[in-house]
Amino acid sequence: MDVDKEYFSNISSRERAIFEGAISMGALFHQFIGTPVNNNTKESLEIAIKNSLKLQPAIEDVEVKINFERLEEALSEFDYTSLNGDMLDVKIYTKVGNVKATIRMEFIEELNYPLMYVEDIED
Amino acid sequence: MDVDKEYFSNISSRERAIFEGAISMGALFHQFIGTPVNNNTKESLEIAIKNSLKLQPAIEDVEVKINFERLEEALSEFDYTSLNGDMLDVKIYTKVGNVKATIRMEFIEELNYPLMYVEDIED
Amino acid sequence: MDVDKEYFSNISSRERAIFEGAISMGALFHQFIGTPVNNNTKESLEIAIKNSLKLQPAIEDVEVKINFERLEEALSEFDYTSLNGDMLDVKIYTKVGNVKATIRMEFIEELNYPLMYVEDIED
Amino acid sequence: MDVDKEYFSNISSRERAIFEGAISMGALFHQFIGTPVNNNTKESLEIAIKNSLKLQPAIEDVEVKINFERLEEALSEFDYTSLNGDMLDVKIYTKVGNVKATIRMEFIEELNYPLMYVEDIED
Repeated sequence: MDVDKEYFSNISSRERAIFEGAISMGALFHQFIGTPVNNNTKESLEIAIKNSLKLQPAIEDVEVKINFERLEEALSEFDYTSLNGDMLDVKIYTKVGNVKATIRMEFIEELNYPLMYVEDIED
Repeated sequence: MDVDKEYFSNISSRERAIFEGAISMGALFHQFIGTPVNNNTKESLEIAIKNSLKLQPAIEDVEVKINFERLEEALSEFDYTSLNGDMLDVKIYTKVGNVKATIRMEFIEELNYPLMYVEDIED
Repeated sequence: MDVDKEYFSNISSRERAIFEGAISMGALFHQFIGTPVNNNTKESLEIAIKNSLKLQPAIEDVEVKINFERLEEALSEFDYTSLNGDMLDVKIYTKVGNVKATIRMEFIEELNYPLMYVEDIED
Repeated sequence: MDVDKEYFSNISSRERAIFEGAISMGALFHQFIGTPVNNNTKESLEIAIKNSLKLQPAIEDVEVKINFERLEEALSEFDYTSLNGDMLDVKIYTKVGNVKATIRMEFIEELNYPLMYVEDIED
């Protein structure tokens, strides 16, 4: 089966670059939120998140930063916390045909919300 | 803050309708996969999935079907199973400006994959 | 196969009542944390959580309360938030043989931690 | 606050070793099921799972094996799959006072179920 022809001929390369990056960003948030984490383990978690998301269609690269300061504040008596949306800063780079897009998630204080948006897109 | 102006002026209404639906589809899959389910509980799970996803930006409606036949096959000795990607058939309806999009997830046997795609979009 | 004989003959009914309730409490937290929720949807989410967890072995009942006050504070500009450990108050009731146990999760401010413990157990 | 005295004086060390291991096993399953994985990424996922679970109370060590053969069968056209309960073989080692317990999860074909049980416990 030609998946692209069968299922994606109704949208442009630009639209699909946005589509695939958005799926992976939603996936990342809802898969990993809640994971136990502290400063000693955040690097291995960042790596696993990056590696797993890069498997998805059209994903070229993933940059994940678990915010250090927020992590410190959130630590419980047991010296770890659950990964939370306000700790995450993520860039997902997609490529479809000649179009490259960067999908971003960052916590916006003013909105009290981990906003996902298209940070950059070039045809 | 004018979120639309600040963060979304670089993409069209059509692109944003795709973007927001794709985020929610990725979210749905990775939030709810693994949930214990059987025929007695699938309706309340479908409702909770629908209600929670409808809260996200630009989501007009969500249709979730947990596939009965596949559920039957998957049942364990304990008369339930974990929600799996091959049981889900989902439509997410988005609206941004005058653009309406339908994002679909369905399990495609030939691909052995729960494919997400833009089923319909109209400006 | 006699599962009880094969896999659980090395622990007492009391220990198994604790074991099964603890599994379900860990499951609940890590399955549903991150789910979009607000006051309009929290009831359907509470019901789905309760119904899904009651399917697991030895679980007699589940009481889930999503804490209203904390939900209010957490609301984003988009009028919903992600379900968080500090919003949850849960009791899971298990029964194995003649032993009944209540496993509890509640957020303890002093610990900054959603503590899980055996609230009650009677042989 | 003396958490042990306040919340755990009603159960024995043996019971608590079982309790804490069971929570972490339920947590592991419901946190990571659904994660995209293939042979190239399974090691980093195993490491992240191990590191995150080891943060939880009373957890001494965690051994996670993502079953290679099952992974091969499950691969989609896109060369990855979602982590599934039937691929996981996990041992969680707990210690409370002088009691050491091993909590195990393995997929039992005959039950069509990823069974969690107390594999070993010694006072």
